[in-house]
Amino acid sequence: MSASHDLSSNDITALTELAGRLADAARRETLARFRPAGGIAAANKEAAGFDPVTEADRAAEAAMREILGRERPEDGIYGEEQGQSLGTSGYVWVLDPIDGTRGFMSGTPTWGVLIGLARVVDGALGAPFLGIVDQPYIGERFIGGPGIARLIGPHGEQDLKTRSAATDALADAVLFTTFPEVGTPEEGAAFKRLSAQAKLTRYGMDCYAYALLAAGQIDLVVEAQLHPYDIQGPMAVVEAAGGIVTNWQGGAAHLGGQVIAAANPEIHAAALAVLNG
Amino acid sequence: MSASHDLSSNDITALTELAGRLADAARRETLARFRPAGGIAAANKEAAGFDPVTEADRAAEAAMREILGRERPEDGIYGEEQGQSLGTSGYVWVLDPIDGTRGFMSGTPTWGVLIGLARVVDGALGAPFLGIVDQPYIGERFIGGPGIARLIGPHGEQDLKTRSAATDALADAVLFTTFPEVGTPEEGAAFKRLSAQAKLTRYGMDCYAYALLAAGQIDLVVEAQLHPYDIQGPMAVVEAAGGIVTNWQGGAAHLGGQVIAAANPEIHAAALAVLNG
Repeated sequence: MSASHDLSSNDITALTELAGRLADAARRETLARFRPAGGIAAANKEAAGFDPVTEADRAAEAAMREILGRERPEDGIYGEEQGQSLGTSGYVWVLDPIDGTRGFMSGTPTWGVLIGLARVVDGALGAPFLGIVDQPYIGERFIGGPGIARLIGPHGEQDLKTRSAATDALADAVLFTTFPEVGTPEEGAAFKRLSAQAKLTRYGMDCYAYALLAAGQIDLVVEAQLHPYDIQGPMAVVEAAGGIVTNWQGGAAHLGGQVIAAANPEIHAAALAVLNG
Repeated sequence: MSASHDLSSNDITALTELAGRLADAARRETLARFRPAGGIAAANKEAAGFDPVTEADRAAEAAMREILGRERPEDGIYGEEQGQSLGTSGYVWVLDPIDGTRGFMSGTPTWGVLIGLARVVDGALGAPFLGIVDQPYIGERFIGGPGIARLIGPHGEQDLKTRSAATDALADAVLFTTFPEVGTPEEGAAFKRLSAQAKLTRYGMDCYAYALLAAGQIDLVVEAQLHPYDIQGPMAVVEAAGGIVTNWQGGAAHLGGQVIAAANPEIHAAALAVLNG
């Protein structure tokens, strides 16, 4: 939370509220284009050159940019679709309007709108101190920041808290990644070593896996070749809930690459040892 | 729909309504035990011998059996948890209180309550003519039967309809299965041949994949080693929505084993050719 040390609690409240309005705007644009009749393939065929996924991605990022341009014109925006700028205020909004586009195009309810808010550090994108993972179809929002780690979902609200270590952390661990083929052959081999020691490995959840980790339901998310906008939102949520997010060497993860998110220090250390073993 | 030829539309309406009440009862029991604080592992540790997944499975099936015992005491019940009987009425309710227990224990919202209603044919469990795939956390219910193929979800109601074939059916296909390791090595090799020809393969959705197929969002679900209660509910929903469900040889799938669900005849034929190629 050191990145937010110069923010008052009023500032934090206002930024959290703004992040929520960004997520609301992205929710409208993505939901309007989710699950078209006959699926994405049919929508493509009907209107040549029109791709609902691309269109939802673009419209959701544009809607968030429109709000930021009006209310925080000096902040930077680091978006998946429409470019990156660090701005002049020292704050950067990191936006992934649809994380999990392959899930989106298949109709699964586990893609997400990702929003992170980071400081500029030494002229570069720093670590996020506020973030949202939003699942519009379910109507589920995971929020993490200074003094807040909260799920607002279809069955009410609750605090987010990662779980503590089991007696034998790794042997009891539930591990998630998005694709069975993780990164390069070397990265894939490291992941397989880890998977072989875990109790259960599950696939296909995209950003939703980080949300489950923040909610205390799983132990590890391990991925490779991430972009900054893939991880900044989830990272803030997981850290606010008590989890740890680093790269596979234990260093900074806020720029993406090889990322491990862990529920607690014990499982984090055990998993790093296997990934680098 | 031939299995229902001797049922009046009043009968069908009553049976569909009853199936909905079974799903309601199972929804209450499963949701009450879904996502405990700290996850399933913590709940296990706190009360030795108490497993929320087993408990949710058991309680949900018991709740459905209680209703059937009162209202349809002569029907058979073929349940995952509490035994199988064919009854004396000629009808059998096929119940899987939690399909996707590994998803349930990980907190993912893609497990389901499966309900199928089949006739007894030649003294054995026949094919289902009515079915439900229910996802309690999202609040989403997929219903299929004579004259009905319907989704009731968080954003309203809509008809279910599988999608028609793309120009090049297989190359444009979105394929789902639950585990990357499909069945035996031979079954796995057949699946990999199919996956290599599809546009996209996704994992980890359990019964929810059949629901997506019925909703016209994906093209194929291919699995092996299924039990009758894994497939009867989804099969009725997919067929009511216009899809095709067979085994990998094109024969009956209502008893499980190797199952392929396809959005249309073209993609079904193309996929069977590859699986058996």
